[in-house]
Order: sequence, then structure tokens, then C-alpha cells
Amino acid sequence: MGFINALEQCSNTNNSFVCVGLDPNPGRYPAPLQNSPGRLLEFCKSIVDATHDKVCAYKPQISYFAAQRGEAQLEELIGYIKSEYPGVPVILDAKRGDIGATAEQYAAEAFERYGADAVTVNPYMGFDAIEPFLNYSERGVVILCRTSNPGGQDFQELLVDGKPLYQQVARTVSEQWNGHGNCLLVVGATAPEQMREVRALVGDMPFLVPGVGAQGGDLPALWAAGRDSNGAGLIINSSRGILYASGGDDFADAARAATDSLRQQINSVRE
Amino acid sequence: MGFINALEQCSNTNNSFVCVGLDPNPGRYPAPLQNSPGRLLEFCKSIVDATHDKVCAYKPQISYFAAQRGEAQLEELIGYIKSEYPGVPVILDAKRGDIGATAEQYAAEAFERYGADAVTVNPYMGFDAIEPFLNYSERGVVILCRTSNPGGQDFQELLVDGKPLYQQVARTVSEQWNGHGNCLLVVGATAPEQMREVRALVGDMPFLVPGVGAQGGDLPALWAAGRDSNGAGLIINSSRGILYASGGDDFADAARAATDSLRQQINSVRE
Repeated sequence: MGFINALEQCSNTNNSFVCVGLDPNPGRYPAPLQNSPGRLLEFCKSIVDATHDKVCAYKPQISYFAAQRGEAQLEELIGYIKSEYPGVPVILDAKRGDIGATAEQYAAEAFERYGADAVTVNPYMGFDAIEPFLNYSERGVVILCRTSNPGGQDFQELLVDGKPLYQQVARTVSEQWNGHGNCLLVVGATAPEQMREVRALVGDMPFLVPGVGAQGGDLPALWAAGRDSNGAGLIINSSRGILYASGGDDFADAARAATDSLRQQINSVRE
Repeated sequence: MGFINALEQCSNTNNSFVCVGLDPNPGRYPAPLQNSPGRLLEFCKSIVDATHDKVCAYKPQISYFAAQRGEAQLEELIGYIKSEYPGVPVILDAKRGDIGATAEQYAAEAFERYGADAVTVNPYMGFDAIEPFLNYSERGVVILCRTSNPGGQDFQELLVDGKPLYQQVARTVSEQWNGHGNCLLVVGATAPEQMREVRALVGDMPFLVPGVGAQGGDLPALWAAGRDSNGAGLIINSSRGILYASGGDDFADAARAATDSLRQQINSVRE
């Protein structure tokens, strides 16, 4: 089964559009794990165990593992999710992008080594930088379009033939890169008007939506702007608001409660 | 000493504008190393030992190490270059880019964990994705501008106010991001006319130039287009043409000869 179908199935099973971002910040481990040597993996596993039936996907952010020499733990974490909770897809957030021969290595890193079901990539270098990922037709390729950070406007909003660059990216992905039907777009929650424009260009292509919670995205506005023709199609990511819902002994319970609260907020907005 | 000064000093000492790209392709180890368990590190060290007095920098490409579970070897390789050949700067080719909190982790990966002197980054996500790297003011930040691959034209050539996007990136880096004087740009050898335009915009900012050799860049054309006001300012990268100059027992000697040949070609073009 292809990634997008797996994602929809998990979303239906758990009645959830919440993706939990696994960004284990070395300065923010909860108190009971602070002195544990295996805390990187232990923390992420605890979050997964506490939330697996309330999510549509997990999104580990590779930089946090790389900065902590945690590649082996990232492999083990993704393996753990796939063996314990095989219905829940894993999006590796890596934002890779390089010329063809190098992109093949990055695709091998994401899909072969880590066994991720999808990976985020950067479009700046163009088609041959993305093609090696696209060729894994059962995996998802999540392409940066309009990002949620302040710098998202520096280049993405520049006008090209009267339309902003991010719309040109969306159009190119939709019309030229999606031959295997395995493309998704990153469209930030902080820019609902831009999300509406992108939705109008790309049909029912799913969006990965960062920027709810810590970054301040507005849920009703973004749902109205971004939902697809089936009233779905958004993968709403939350990282800090879930991982650090409590810094105490109850961190896993608090993460579950925060996940379920976001899940319910989204579902009530949908109705 | 800041990265750009260290780079100039090495270039002067070795009378060289050649950067050797360390891209250890798992399918292309030379015959004598093919069955060696430590071949990833052994191969790269052999290349470094054979070329260290003919280069201005090394540029390991992290994807090749990541795809081969070679992070520890990459750390050891960079440590080896810094202890054995301390005058030769190391540019980690990683093309990272993500929102601020995540970019801090990527900067820690490149500069703290690996101890690289410089790192390549992707500008698509804007200033806050680059700022954590820039704040390491003694390290170099090498920002993608006009890349050498075919897809380099997909978005980088789109016209923004009548000028291509890569020129907007060059201008923004030069005018807004270079407060610490530690920015460089990636400008591919396959696009000398574009290189000329970028040089006109950014003064003496150094360029990292991939695409000579395997990708077909033309040396006299690019030198004329890209040299700075001192007749320098280009870091000409070659990877495959040096690493795989021979697949036999003489691979290290052949790599040295290929490096020196490129060095001399560049120097004769300069005169």
C-alpha cells in the first residue's frame, strides 16, 4: 500500500489528523528521564506508547538525533513504531535536497537505512534533486512549499509572473513531479490565506501542516482554507505542545492528553 | 581566524584553488579496498594523505556517510584532517535548512559534533533557517545560490521583478545575511553567465564551485566570469574526477595526479 493510502487508513482508524513531531530537545527531557543514559530513545518511545491510538502519523526530526549522535536510536525508534504500531506511518523530517547522485544517497538514508514511510525534501535544487525520492513510489515525498517560519516569506513570497514562488512550486509538483501519486506539500499553519491558494492549485494532494501550537497557527482558519474535497487532507503536526506538555513524572499522560485534545479540537472544527 | 581567512591562507600556501569533494560512493571503492571492513574511512584518509598539499579545502558530502551508517567515520575523518593537516579547512556538504529551533540542532551537528569549518545550507526557508549557522561567526556558511545540476534552472531561474531568483538570493545574502562576514555562495561551474551576474552583485564574496569535470563545467569561461577583484575567490570542487581517477592499486597516486592536474589547469587559466 502506498504512503498516502496508509496515512488515510491510519487517520480513519484513529479518527485523527494529528501528527506528533518527535523533536527530542536535549535541554528539555522530562525530570524522570534527565539522568537516564538511554533517554533519547526512552523519551520518544514513551511518547509513542502514550499516543499511538490518537495520531495519523509520527514525524521524527532527524536533526535532534544527529546533534546527539542518536542515529542508532532513530533507527531503533522507527523500527519500534513499525513493529509495535504497524498501522502508523512515519514521516522522517530531514528536508534533504542535492544533485541527483547525492540525492540517491539521501533517499537511501531515509528509506533504506531508517525505513521511513515518507521524507520531507527541499525543492530549491529542482527536479533531479527530488527524482530519486519520487522513484520510491510506495513512499511519500513531502515537498516544502510555504513554510510556517518567519523566513518563509523571504523567498517563498517573491512574485514570479505575478504569483508567489510557493505557488509555482505547488504547480510544478502537482503538474510535473507527481507521476507516481506520492507527493505531499508542507504548508504552514501560520499562513491560511496562502494555504487556500495552494489548495486551489493542487486538488486533493495532502498537506503536512506545521506551526499549530508553539508557532501560533489558527485551527478553524487553516481547516477552512486547507481541507480537501473530502473534508480531509491535512496532517496537523504538533511537537513541543505534546512532547513538553509536562516536564514531570506524568509527561507521557500529559502528552496523551495534549494529543487527544488537539485531535478533538480538529474534529470539532471539521463538523 | 575566521573560515574565509583560513581558506585564503591554505589556498596561498598550496597555490591551489582545488577543493576535493569526499563522496565515497559505496559502489566505487578502488580494488585494493573493496573487501576491507574499514574502507569508508580508509579510502577517504588515503585520498587526503595523497592530496593535502595540493588543495585549498576538503568537502566531505555527508549523505554518503549517512547512507553507509558512517557518522563515526565522518567524525574521525574530519578529526584526522584537523590533526594531521591543520591548515586545510573542511567544508561539510550537508545543504541543511529548517526553522530556527531545528536549524540550531543542524548547526550543532555540523560545527560541534563534526567540527567542520564551514557547512553548505539551503536558503529556501529564509533567514531564521540560516541565522543559527551565521552566529558561528568564525565558521563559514555556504549558501546555495545557482546550482550546477539540470534542475538548478527549475526555480532558481524564475524571474522575480525581472531578475532570476538566484540573483535575489545573492543580493539578500550579500546585503542582509553577511553581518559577520562569514557567508559564501554555491555557484555552479555549468552556468558561467549566471556566475558573472552573481559576481557583479556580491563583491569579493567567495564562491564554492561544483560541476567541473563530471558535470562538464568549462574552466576558462568560469574563471573569467567568477574571479574576484584579486583574481581569486573561487573554490573549484572536484569529486569523482579525483576519487575515481583510478580504480586500481594506484588510486591514491592517481588522485594526487588528478588533483595536481586540475590545480595547474586553474593556475594556468589565472595567468
